[in-house]
Amino acid sequence: MYRLYEMGDSGNCYKVRLLLHQLDLAYKRVPTDIFSGETRTKEFLALNPNGRVPLLVLNDGRTLAESNAILCYLARGSNYLPVESYPHALVLQWLFFEQYSHEPFIATNRAWIHLLGDADGHAAQIEANHPRGLAALAVMEQHLKTSKFFVGDDYSIADIALYAYTHVAHQGNYDLGNFPNVRGWLNRVSEQSRHIAIDG
Amino acid sequence: MYRLYEMGDSGNCYKVRLLLHQLDLAYKRVPTDIFSGETRTKEFLALNPNGRVPLLVLNDGRTLAESNAILCYLARGSNYLPVESYPHALVLQWLFFEQYSHEPFIATNRAWIHLLGDADGHAAQIEANHPRGLAALAVMEQHLKTSKFFVGDDYSIADIALYAYTHVAHQGNYDLGNFPNVRGWLNRVSEQSRHIAIDG
Repeated sequence: MYRLYEMGDSGNCYKVRLLLHQLDLAYKRVPTDIFSGETRTKEFLALNPNGRVPLLVLNDGRTLAESNAILCYLARGSNYLPVESYPHALVLQWLFFEQYSHEPFIATNRAWIHLLGDADGHAAQIEANHPRGLAALAVMEQHLKTSKFFVGDDYSIADIALYAYTHVAHQGNYDLGNFPNVRGWLNRVSEQSRHIAIDG
Repeated sequence: MYRLYEMGDSGNCYKVRLLLHQLDLAYKRVPTDIFSGETRTKEFLALNPNGRVPLLVLNDGRTLAESNAILCYLARGSNYLPVESYPHALVLQWLFFEQYSHEPFIATNRAWIHLLGDADGHAAQIEANHPRGLAALAVMEQHLKTSKFFVGDDYSIADIALYAYTHVAHQGNYDLGNFPNVRGWLNRVSEQSRHIAIDG
């Protein structure tokens, strides 16, 4: 059985739990609190030298880090990751977009404001991040004008990855009022079979 | 023939040129200057709504963005991207590590200091980024203690992606003196068949 080192209200960890559930794969959760230093212990760093969750441990003890790499690993051979070369590459394109242009601004502001309750302590960074998060949402909004999901008409791990922090963006003070296509897409994702909610 | 919208001294663009050359694939370079706004024109945004290079245009006009997604697309079926599930996932793990934990600190400081010559204008951000870039280099250093390349004994696109900004990290005031394993690996990468240098 897989072991997943994770934190319940982390969007990056939620991505993996959502896919594991949709694929009906058994796994054991190992709660690991980022904020109390549990990803920086000697024991954890031996598993992931980059000191981050989620971390997936396979049956044989081999480890895999990086939420979106874990999604690709688990989704391989399923309907959630196209096999054909170009749509497969488009899924990866959106996964890299999520980690580079979306998560550092939207997830980070949510963590400071909502999870840590320390908006004042990070006011300058939150303000600097905000327009960059809006820019990512604008790219998504434009794409979703003509696309039901991120890669064509089929729900994929690109949708799972982008859903994770977009559906809680309001917790980072992002207003989705001006992003009707994003809101419609969030609904479509949440209506997928075997969808589960984020914790907390 | 592929068309590649790119900038010569961008590491993200260099990754793609290096792989195209090593795969002996013909392509046409379309020089696109980030700093003079050429990725923000209406014409360019029609190709990549996220306004970034590199952007690959296929023969039939379809586009692909995100440097590491382009590497995966081009490397498919070659020796540079393992087919087997777990090593394939490890390549992706390092590609996501590069874009999340490495590039935003090492490439960004290099851009401000070396490409724009504006260290003073970004002094606070450069200082904030520096320890995070060092942390990424430390993760690489530890991994390379026991590994010839990032995924086992074989050069892959994980090495290409991490080489791109690591070998010019000194241009962002990162000293590789304390990272002997990283320096040894840089040499091994540069000795690969059909290696080419970054421009500029």
